[in-house]
Amino acid sequence: MTPIKLAIAGVGKIVYDQHAPAIAGNPDFQLVATASRNHSIDGVTAFKTMAEMLDSGTQIDAISLCMPPQYRYEAARQALRAGKHVFLEKPPGATLSEVESLKALAAEQGVTLFASWHSRHAPAVQVVKRHLQQHAPRRVEVIWREDVRHWHPDQEWIWQPGGLGVFDPGINALSIVTEILPQAMFLKQATLEVPANRQTPIAARLAFTDALGTDVQADFDWRQTGEQTWDIVIDTASTHLHLKKGGHELWIDQAPGELPVEGEYPSLYAHFCQLIRNKSSDVDVAPLRHVADAFMLGEHVVTDAFV
Amino acid sequence: MTPIKLAIAGVGKIVYDQHAPAIAGNPDFQLVATASRNHSIDGVTAFKTMAEMLDSGTQIDAISLCMPPQYRYEAARQALRAGKHVFLEKPPGATLSEVESLKALAAEQGVTLFASWHSRHAPAVQVVKRHLQQHAPRRVEVIWREDVRHWHPDQEWIWQPGGLGVFDPGINALSIVTEILPQAMFLKQATLEVPANRQTPIAARLAFTDALGTDVQADFDWRQTGEQTWDIVIDTASTHLHLKKGGHELWIDQAPGELPVEGEYPSLYAHFCQLIRNKSSDVDVAPLRHVADAFMLGEHVVTDAFV
Repeated sequence: MTPIKLAIAGVGKIVYDQHAPAIAGNPDFQLVATASRNHSIDGVTAFKTMAEMLDSGTQIDAISLCMPPQYRYEAARQALRAGKHVFLEKPPGATLSEVESLKALAAEQGVTLFASWHSRHAPAVQVVKRHLQQHAPRRVEVIWREDVRHWHPDQEWIWQPGGLGVFDPGINALSIVTEILPQAMFLKQATLEVPANRQTPIAARLAFTDALGTDVQADFDWRQTGEQTWDIVIDTASTHLHLKKGGHELWIDQAPGELPVEGEYPSLYAHFCQLIRNKSSDVDVAPLRHVADAFMLGEHVVTDAFV
Repeated sequence: MTPIKLAIAGVGKIVYDQHAPAIAGNPDFQLVATASRNHSIDGVTAFKTMAEMLDSGTQIDAISLCMPPQYRYEAARQALRAGKHVFLEKPPGATLSEVESLKALAAEQGVTLFASWHSRHAPAVQVVKRHLQQHAPRRVEVIWREDVRHWHPDQEWIWQPGGLGVFDPGINALSIVTEILPQAMFLKQATLEVPANRQTPIAARLAFTDALGTDVQADFDWRQTGEQTWDIVIDTASTHLHLKKGGHELWIDQAPGELPVEGEYPSLYAHFCQLIRNKSSDVDVAPLRHVADAFMLGEHVVTDAFV
């Protein structure tokens, strides 16, 4: 089959680290252009804006949108209206309603819209999902603690309204939990700690449950120095699961679980290719919906200024 | 047809003012019980809790849930699991995800779930909706200003996390706007003013748009003394509409529009009866989704303490 001619809009850290290598390793895709104000990829035709790229006459089938979520809707609308398939980095937008609007537009245009959640493609996720279909979870504990200074240097957008703060990494945990739990969960209580000089939380404690009364606790914190933690611990009636490193390591009853080897972004692009070939879309807003619920239901507590 | 045996859970101001008279005036319903910790209705069997009512053996087909949103999920779950049709007062829940969970449960149980939005049943709403299908809106301005001290005396729950604050009345405006606009809108920018000693906003300014670029502005304020305002002003290319009094009065190009006479709650109960007879549900979360979007995307500004 002819490779899908792909462009990337919004070139930054995640593109250099993840998208570009995954695309280079997948013969179903050919990277033909980028649109980005300040960055480009060696050997790939570079445009400054989405409009310039779409007007250039360059043949493009699909576009990956990797700019901050506050700017994603307008880019997605332009791409969909031009008839391109669209891959949305997580989170798929700044609001739930704009994602609904994009879903409708993609259906109208007959193109693929993929709201990606890279952590769902971590190797332990499907293994644990299958395990929990056999063994109902009773208690789930999510501990997601990292150092914002290390992972988001100079990224002011994460602190601005719509930037989500600690939910930017936390939504990765929520994307895993919503994928593996057999029942849909919902928030019962939340506390958001917002630095006095910022708009988005630096920490959050969340308590969810589901129709069966499963107890799901989440602890997101961006102030962790030293060792970083991206763990999910699950107790069922007879087993104890421990996902570590964001789903890249799994321990079942203290023994290491065997995991497939494919990486997150290679798996995401394989899925995007399948969606395009099957003329279908995949837009699950559940992780973003839980974040919106947390902002709406959560108690907001002011904490130390972040500098 | 045999009347539907109806119960009410959570008896308070809205029940005495609206539900009880609407039910009394509708021969399709027979009010058989209430469940409420502190209040009851003269001549109707009274229970203290939902569980007590469901266990009592009283024959009940359907239950209207009128307690504050923070307590609605658990009551709805009990009612649905007992096989009752459920009418949810607005807002349908404290989170979007719990409403999703209730939708799934109602479908599983084969009963009706109705997430009601009473303002959508104001007499001008369907008239304006039809008008805007012929005349595309260009600019919409919502002004919803009322005196919280007058309308919500001693209702502490509105100031607690999940109580929504000024969005409690504002969601009525959003329920009208989402009903009448031909295109789905989404939030672009929001400012929420939260009193220094409270958890929920006392005022909000919201700017929405839609796929056609319609400009929708909303101004919600709970500090209005004197005249109260529940207005929506709409400009199309050739007409000017002014909905006043929450959709109870309509002016088209400065002339009064003719409106049907049915009241909001009688219309809601007529619709609930139809849903039950047709074995269908009606759960549109769009107004609550816009509120969640506003909490997530909005800039939070601290304002004077409210006492």
